Amino acid sequence: MRLSKGTLVTRRETPSEADTRGTEMLLRAGFIRQLGSGLYTTLPLMTRVLHKLEALIRRELDGAAQEVSFPQLQPAALWRQSGRWDAYTQVEQIMFAVTDRGGRELALAPTHEEVAVAVARELVGSYRDLPLSVYQIGRKFRDELRPRAGLLRTREFVMKDGYSFHATPEDLARTFEVMGDAYARILTRLGAEWRAAQADSGLIGGAESREYLLLSDVGEDTLLYTADGLYVANAERAVSRAHPAPASPFSCFERRHTPGTSTVASACAALGCEASQMIKNVLYEAEFLEGGQPSTRPVLVSLRGDHSVNPVKLWNAVSARIDGTLTALEVADTEQWAGDLPLGYLAPDLPDGTERPFLRLCDGAAAHAQHFATGANETGFHVVGANWGQQYPLPEVADLRQVEAGERSIHDPAQPLLAARGIEVGHIFQLGTRYTAAMNLSYTAADGTPQTPTMGCYGLGVTRLAAALAEQLADERGLVWPAVIAPYEVILTVVDLQDTAQVEAAEGLYAELRAAGVDALLDDRPSRAGVKFADADLTGIPWRVTLGRTVGLGRAEVRERRGGETWEPGLGKITGFLRARLGQR
Amino acid sequence: MRLSKGTLVTRRETPSEADTRGTEMLLRAGFIRQLGSGLYTTLPLMTRVLHKLEALIRRELDGAAQEVSFPQLQPAALWRQSGRWDAYTQVEQIMFAVTDRGGRELALAPTHEEVAVAVARELVGSYRDLPLSVYQIGRKFRDELRPRAGLLRTREFVMKDGYSFHATPEDLARTFEVMGDAYARILTRLGAEWRAAQADSGLIGGAESREYLLLSDVGEDTLLYTADGLYVANAERAVSRAHPAPASPFSCFERRHTPGTSTVASACAALGCEASQMIKNVLYEAEFLEGGQPSTRPVLVSLRGDHSVNPVKLWNAVSARIDGTLTALEVADTEQWAGDLPLGYLAPDLPDGTERPFLRLCDGAAAHAQHFATGANETGFHVVGANWGQQYPLPEVADLRQVEAGERSIHDPAQPLLAARGIEVGHIFQLGTRYTAAMNLSYTAADGTPQTPTMGCYGLGVTRLAAALAEQLADERGLVWPAVIAPYEVILTVVDLQDTAQVEAAEGLYAELRAAGVDALLDDRPSRAGVKFADADLTGIPWRVTLGRTVGLGRAEVRERRGGETWEPGLGKITGFLRARLGQR
Repeated sequence: MRLSKGTLVTRRETPSEADTRGTEMLLRAGFIRQLGSGLYTTLPLMTRVLHKLEALIRRELDGAAQEVSFPQLQPAALWRQSGRWDAYTQVEQIMFAVTDRGGRELALAPTHEEVAVAVARELVGSYRDLPLSVYQIGRKFRDELRPRAGLLRTREFVMKDGYSFHATPEDLARTFEVMGDAYARILTRLGAEWRAAQADSGLIGGAESREYLLLSDVGEDTLLYTADGLYVANAERAVSRAHPAPASPFSCFERRHTPGTSTVASACAALGCEASQMIKNVLYEAEFLEGGQPSTRPVLVSLRGDHSVNPVKLWNAVSARIDGTLTALEVADTEQWAGDLPLGYLAPDLPDGTERPFLRLCDGAAAHAQHFATGANETGFHVVGANWGQQYPLPEVADLRQVEAGERSIHDPAQPLLAARGIEVGHIFQLGTRYTAAMNLSYTAADGTPQTPTMGCYGLGVTRLAAALAEQLADERGLVWPAVIAPYEVILTVVDLQDTAQVEAAEGLYAELRAAGVDALLDDRPSRAGVKFADADLTGIPWRVTLGRTVGLGRAEVRERRGGETWEPGLGKITGFLRARLGQR
Repeated sequence: MRLSKGTLVTRRETPSEADTRGTEMLLRAGFIRQLGSGLYTTLPLMTRVLHKLEALIRRELDGAAQEVSFPQLQPAALWRQSGRWDAYTQVEQIMFAVTDRGGRELALAPTHEEVAVAVARELVGSYRDLPLSVYQIGRKFRDELRPRAGLLRTREFVMKDGYSFHATPEDLARTFEVMGDAYARILTRLGAEWRAAQADSGLIGGAESREYLLLSDVGEDTLLYTADGLYVANAERAVSRAHPAPASPFSCFERRHTPGTSTVASACAALGCEASQMIKNVLYEAEFLEGGQPSTRPVLVSLRGDHSVNPVKLWNAVSARIDGTLTALEVADTEQWAGDLPLGYLAPDLPDGTERPFLRLCDGAAAHAQHFATGANETGFHVVGANWGQQYPLPEVADLRQVEAGERSIHDPAQPLLAARGIEVGHIFQLGTRYTAAMNLSYTAADGTPQTPTMGCYGLGVTRLAAALAEQLADERGLVWPAVIAPYEVILTVVDLQDTAQVEAAEGLYAELRAAGVDALLDDRPSRAGVKFADADLTGIPWRVTLGRTVGLGRAEVRERRGGETWEPGLGKITGFLRARLGQR
């Protein structure tokens, strides 16, 4: 392409809406423009990046799944069959819903599990039709509470989403790994610094899930990992060995007067113990829909004084123990308890009120506490030397605590957990039969019996992956693209358009590169050389060839954007030089 | 691809939802499945067709426009700026609108003129930035009143839509032709039987527009054209020379008693004249929004008794003459006129009621009538021998009548108009400044003055074009695809999987074809040969190679789907034979 014929609008100043470096550079380099909150137009350069990324994804999925395309408008009835309509429209409010001229509700696709099952119902009849593995690349819509960071969190984006159906969990597990391997190849070919992490399944559900993240300080996710590479998990579901609590200083169960010690720190100081030797009891209120009716239940969580509640783990634990759809889970608003609760001094056996009984849960690390201190259910009083099964019945035990960097890993206590920030770009799930059973997808097995297939789903954010790469690779001069998805592989910069020797050399090289299959961009704009150099850096095209006064001597500089190294292979050898370098992509 | 590894679900029976042959075959051949009213999943074979069609479109647009991608969710404010929010949400109700969690309204893109102008406001500053020409390929959403014919009229579909901005109308006209030429090349390369026709601009607006249609009996549009190829127009806006009315038998203006003659035919019989010698006066009621408030106005249309009103022309004529947005235009409901109107006997000078005065319009052909008969404004009475400007003031004249096949063309009275049915697949518009002025897009001209660019837009339905081709080419055995967009170019059918010679020959040829760049599908399913032959025909893959018992003799049959001709070039020459044939694509 000739820049004189195309549209490139770059900016020198930082746009006010740029909250990350990658966003700033994508805006300044003319790759994207914001249309509204969380809504972006991709301009020609970004459109090329996305097309190349989509092509890379298709190549790596070839043979593992067949490409289809589902509607983005989906009958609400499908979401009611799966039981997710309430969760998506009312709880998270993440789904846009429209009503058509006939008064029928339609979902605007945030994801496609329901549609995939509906289509599988049409295609799967017998065991011979399994496995079925399909994917699509298309738009998704999510009414995000807080769109941020340009293309990283938007209300409309491009995603690759795949769905597979299997006769056995083993076959599903195989495909799960095939998809994971494809993601690993894609991220490696992009030259990204990435990690695969154990993850929480969230609203999608299912037993096993794995996230693929690009490391970046602007990421919203925290990864906990070990240096030996054997453990990587999202902090939302990471596990560890808790630091052991020292032996308790309390040998007898006693009640102590501890006025003004409603915090763990002040109580420990008054009692002469460490936070790890105390059990704190935190009151939550769960709101949920039961048969469409809103309802509430109090939840009492016991955990060690030095630990904090992981809200995702607690959400999952409570969800699994109530009937209906959990819609909110917050630390209880004390106002409504009529002031008679000894907050800050609660014990694990706080009596049930006139409302529904407590759902009582105890974190796994707290379940091992011995001779511990805790509240006495009376303001200004604690007890010490308590034991589960003696003074207090042990509540249901669940992993509820937030793991912290520095704790020891489960697989090897010699490995401490390290922390890093990451951008989730992919997430793959072994869903089991959650959707297939709810939506009555069945097949006839070899023995003639009706069976329910097990299901997996596999998401890879296309827009987000491109934006995450921009974040990870951009420097202070602009974007830096890997050649495999760069909008162009090479930019030819003509220093002085008045110099016919330069123009002719550029035109000759441009034709030569194109004939050799190199995706070249010719900057033949009548701008100053400094502007062209700055634009070449800003747009992040991996290779720049500068055609200046030395072309008469058969010389031109070749410069790699990443790293800034320069070469002078001689004008006649530039095409071969670049083909060799690009061949390594 | 090997069919044993993929998913092909074909049906022998005709699905109940198939209302056209193309739809039937797309459903039976496993190309599409319906998810809901006007909502379709494209399965792997159809997804390949659409990708190839998109690639063809991109190739032909290369150099004429740069590809971008706009959001499908669009702030309602943009549609209010252009003045189309009411028309799209209330009048046609064609646009889905959603409200986000912040209570803001968003349109779900039925088209992108507003967004294109909003983006151009970011990119265009000076005359040096013009022309700007961009396009995208993506989904569109329209809440169709009556989805029909599979992919031909759906509520969600893929479209190529382009937008261009220019300093002068001449430059716009040039780009309009460049786009038209690209469409012509695309349709010709597809081997389609197509026509370009003058068209009504509809809701999009603008001065000049041209439709591209595939001829098909299932098309919703009627084309009127001349055999010399010099005139093609959609019946919605076609013009012609009306058949001349014979000289009137009435020389004097007289009132006649004509009881029981409220129809044209009965009145003519009673008066002893032809329908072309009579002026009928038809009462319509226009509903419109004026500053957001609903309002109405009666419209009285005078036209020759042998002519009928073209509703599109009348809509445009009324729209141009009222303030506000026309929302409905129907023959007046007589109930509300309190029974005192002499319906069937109206004259052009029917007195205004207590309501707003009539908007009086006269069709162009009727304006030439002399000594005509018409109603007398009294039930049971007509007048004859009337003339415009004598008994009746001539209302505003406009082209309002429906042109019929058999009438003479304007450009050459020797050419009668012929009629054909067509499926609109493309529509290009010279919009002028309607959107750019309303939305305050301006640029600084060379002389430093602010100017408003003129705009064009160019739509090509991707899903619809593929479906229209299926309609046009399908036969009683199934689909017939042109090689350029066929899901595969060649299908290799192994007659007997137990015969290792057949399997080996097929595998060898499959590898050879793929190495030669031919897109081959290997039918290695353990099905009966008859099933495989039927599926090969049904899916419409252009070339089939049958590997049967004669492979031992070095022979295999090559068969062209379209036409059914067969060849036996010898096993070793099949790849060369097919490459030569496919090279003609």
